[in-house]
Amino acid sequence: MSNEFPISASISLGFLCILCASFGVLVEGRILGLKSNSDLDDSLVYLWPLPSQLSHGNTTISVDPHLSLEVGGKGGDSSIVREAFQRYRDIIFKHSSRGNAVYDITNIKIIVESDNETLHLGVDESYSLYVAKQDGLSILGDATIEANTVYGALRGLETFSQLCSFDYGTKSVEVHKAPWSIQDEPRFVFRGLLLDTSRHYLPISVIKQVIESMSYVKLNVLHWHIIDEESFPLEIPSYPNLWKGAYSKWERYTVEDALEIVEFAKMRGINVMAEIDVPGHGASWGAGYPDLWPSPTCQEPLDVSKNFTFEVISSILTDMRNIFPFELFHLGGDEVNTDCWSSTPHVKQWLQMHNMTGKDAYQYFVLRAQAIAVTKNLTPVNWEETFNTFQENLHPQTVVHNWLGPGVCPRAVEKGFRCIYSNQGVWYLDHLDIPWEGFYNSEPLEGIDDASAQKLVLGGEVCMWGETADASDVQQTIWPRAAAAAERLWSRREVTPTENIRVTVLPRLLYFRCLLNRREIPAAPVKNELARRPPAHFGSCYEQ
Amino acid sequence: MSNEFPISASISLGFLCILCASFGVLVEGRILGLKSNSDLDDSLVYLWPLPSQLSHGNTTISVDPHLSLEVGGKGGDSSIVREAFQRYRDIIFKHSSRGNAVYDITNIKIIVESDNETLHLGVDESYSLYVAKQDGLSILGDATIEANTVYGALRGLETFSQLCSFDYGTKSVEVHKAPWSIQDEPRFVFRGLLLDTSRHYLPISVIKQVIESMSYVKLNVLHWHIIDEESFPLEIPSYPNLWKGAYSKWERYTVEDALEIVEFAKMRGINVMAEIDVPGHGASWGAGYPDLWPSPTCQEPLDVSKNFTFEVISSILTDMRNIFPFELFHLGGDEVNTDCWSSTPHVKQWLQMHNMTGKDAYQYFVLRAQAIAVTKNLTPVNWEETFNTFQENLHPQTVVHNWLGPGVCPRAVEKGFRCIYSNQGVWYLDHLDIPWEGFYNSEPLEGIDDASAQKLVLGGEVCMWGETADASDVQQTIWPRAAAAAERLWSRREVTPTENIRVTVLPRLLYFRCLLNRREIPAAPVKNELARRPPAHFGSCYEQ
Repeated sequence: MSNEFPISASISLGFLCILCASFGVLVEGRILGLKSNSDLDDSLVYLWPLPSQLSHGNTTISVDPHLSLEVGGKGGDSSIVREAFQRYRDIIFKHSSRGNAVYDITNIKIIVESDNETLHLGVDESYSLYVAKQDGLSILGDATIEANTVYGALRGLETFSQLCSFDYGTKSVEVHKAPWSIQDEPRFVFRGLLLDTSRHYLPISVIKQVIESMSYVKLNVLHWHIIDEESFPLEIPSYPNLWKGAYSKWERYTVEDALEIVEFAKMRGINVMAEIDVPGHGASWGAGYPDLWPSPTCQEPLDVSKNFTFEVISSILTDMRNIFPFELFHLGGDEVNTDCWSSTPHVKQWLQMHNMTGKDAYQYFVLRAQAIAVTKNLTPVNWEETFNTFQENLHPQTVVHNWLGPGVCPRAVEKGFRCIYSNQGVWYLDHLDIPWEGFYNSEPLEGIDDASAQKLVLGGEVCMWGETADASDVQQTIWPRAAAAAERLWSRREVTPTENIRVTVLPRLLYFRCLLNRREIPAAPVKNELARRPPAHFGSCYEQ
Repeated sequence: MSNEFPISASISLGFLCILCASFGVLVEGRILGLKSNSDLDDSLVYLWPLPSQLSHGNTTISVDPHLSLEVGGKGGDSSIVREAFQRYRDIIFKHSSRGNAVYDITNIKIIVESDNETLHLGVDESYSLYVAKQDGLSILGDATIEANTVYGALRGLETFSQLCSFDYGTKSVEVHKAPWSIQDEPRFVFRGLLLDTSRHYLPISVIKQVIESMSYVKLNVLHWHIIDEESFPLEIPSYPNLWKGAYSKWERYTVEDALEIVEFAKMRGINVMAEIDVPGHGASWGAGYPDLWPSPTCQEPLDVSKNFTFEVISSILTDMRNIFPFELFHLGGDEVNTDCWSSTPHVKQWLQMHNMTGKDAYQYFVLRAQAIAVTKNLTPVNWEETFNTFQENLHPQTVVHNWLGPGVCPRAVEKGFRCIYSNQGVWYLDHLDIPWEGFYNSEPLEGIDDASAQKLVLGGEVCMWGETADASDVQQTIWPRAAAAAERLWSRREVTPTENIRVTVLPRLLYFRCLLNRREIPAAPVKNELARRPPAHFGSCYEQ
């Protein structure tokens, strides 16, 4: 494993390649912290997720609590950059520093090449980060982030914030092991987290907190599973009775709420992919429009026999297109049981008239919904059952969303479809028995060797289904395990250890979980056998 | 129970006394929300804790999202008031309102009689709140809070914020059942929550969030159990090695951190009562100064035989007095096992020289620590074992802190001591099997009938011991059960129902828990058999 890590070509100041070192030297059985006040394993890099390329020195430098921002490039003066700088200043300087000190770093320079702020799939998120003491000799004084887009600059700011830590001895924020030179870019363009607001309503403040925490691990897609059979919380202006399917009059999202979430996410470089899960998970739609049900006693799948059903879908997509600018739109399509169709007289009659089986009608529904989406310039994403059942009959633009198990993306990309990896055995956050190692060791490209086929795998997504996750526990169910998947999705395979991860990765994840806690994200203990459990006994955050 | 609720004498506009109504009319077995979109039980008042006196009408009025503040009185222009107004504006207006509307309430007037901002025990927290539509006839236009101190004004703002709710239909913030007239004051002067940062370190951001949430239920004392045998996180300038007893170099509080927490709490009308739990819970002190241990292998109680021990205690109290202005200071004194004293040769020799038993030495230690505190103008608070063992030998200023069970406060006040009620059977938050009803039905004055004796009960405190509560779960272990105790401590006994509380109180607590969630406080489901458990299945917040 040693020496596989590429040294950055762009600098040649004789820095150590410390990731190489960490692969070579495994510190067996190291116990951190408790009563020992020991340092962390110094051979590891405490950044999460790991950057593509880095080199560093061995100097400690201090950072001015009045850190100022200098911008450059066509895109540097963006409000996205300026607001992010303010956020990160609050994150970095949570403690009062000792007064009257002289600091090594007083300024951060952010240079953004482009002023195009469109946040599309595959937007350039690469960045370079240099942190060095201004010594009058170096041309790289202070901290500098260079990026092609504002979104790359955001990623660089996050990395910079993780280099900074408060030292309780000097009472100042310090960067250890400076100077740093980092070149970084994501491995996959789609790095998602699913939130389910149908099984439990999540207040917009909670959704925002989840989005904020996603930015800490460089995830870039919130898959908002807004609606399901249990409740329909979103306002749809074209069909204003739809949100009568909400649990209560307070468990709703107005159009303005949703716009605010999209804007909040965009400011953090995160796209919002909305979903309507049709036809199988639509019972709540009928609370406002009972005609959408096959019958009041047999409520799903949505009635395939009525034009009205597709008129409603079309209007929903139009209304949601005005809220969600992301080009991917999830149309669901999973877990369709057609019994209600064959057992409800008027639907049964329609099936017979069109000479369709239940399966035929399922395909008819999926393809018609896809066609509606495509006319609205949306790229349809569907759960894997649609691909498993209908294969190349699907619209060629379809993105297949894996969930049932391994092996689906290889088959989907073989047929030329793009794919998102969410194998429930390793990336379903509501499966509490999947430990962090399960999330970490998974591989979206498993079984796909051909480079051009690999390109069809957009990335992956961890799924936070909401049956037992509400505003009280959703964050500790997500974190820290989602961070393990986030590193898999961001970091090049070559820079992440595959062996002895309890030594090579665990100390970094323990450290990162404590970082989340300091940022008010209630990430659960790392080492518990079951996720989101309380700590079993007293002790240091860095050990639990 | 009906008609026991006093009508406010200060207004006579013919409002309904709705609490009277709610006591008389019990809605049996009402199921809220799920799929029904039903309203709440309209006979209840959805304020937590219930005010002393209130009356209201039946009009809905709207509140301007650009609500402005007008101040009056000598204390109105305080930064405490102005910053609180900004906080509550953010809380009240979390959703975008429909534009161009005309609002009934555009202004809130806060009149504060006194400019004395000293936050001492028993500070006046009373307030009056009027909310009425400006109609050109009434002299009580808009919203008005009148208070003797800024801290009363804070309580009034909290109540005002709970009267406001966002209506998803009109897309504006509304006050229902206006006009409102409320006169309110606390039942007890000491309404506390204990936080334990020794068993698990809590980042300052988390402590601040807990303080913020305390203000939502009008709790007014954070009992900061900073240090215990497991870790010593606080910086003590006089003895700078003491915080070597921290779990790690990052799990610490600087003096500046602690000052910031005290200031943050004061801005919310909350005192911080610090504790050093001597001599029984002091093992972590010896990490920095091993001389404080009887011996390296027998580490507590702190060495009673050395003057050094009391020099350190004295210096700690001096240093902490500079951080914590609150007059009450907790000296612990619980769970003292003197075996280490009698088994360590030099301590054993000292005992023999002074003709002391272990119990004598325990008393000697407690009284000497109390004497040190009193010389520094601190009022000593001690856990009940000190009273149970030494009775009137304690310093007469001692506040006895109950925890072991019922019946202690009656005995303490009989001896003339003041008392704080924390009966572990009902008010220990780490006892996960105590349901909200247990917290709600408890009574600090139980067994004390004499009015002058009752006055010696300062109030009570719920205790969040940290063995299994860290930054990931402390808030859902605290909430919503602490709210049940908070109503007991704030609201006059006569205004809180005692019977059928699953009908008279539970709907209000369910509503309040969802309010906490909307304010980003991850309060756990109310109805689970064990506290802080996830919701058992999908459903509405208002039912779980």
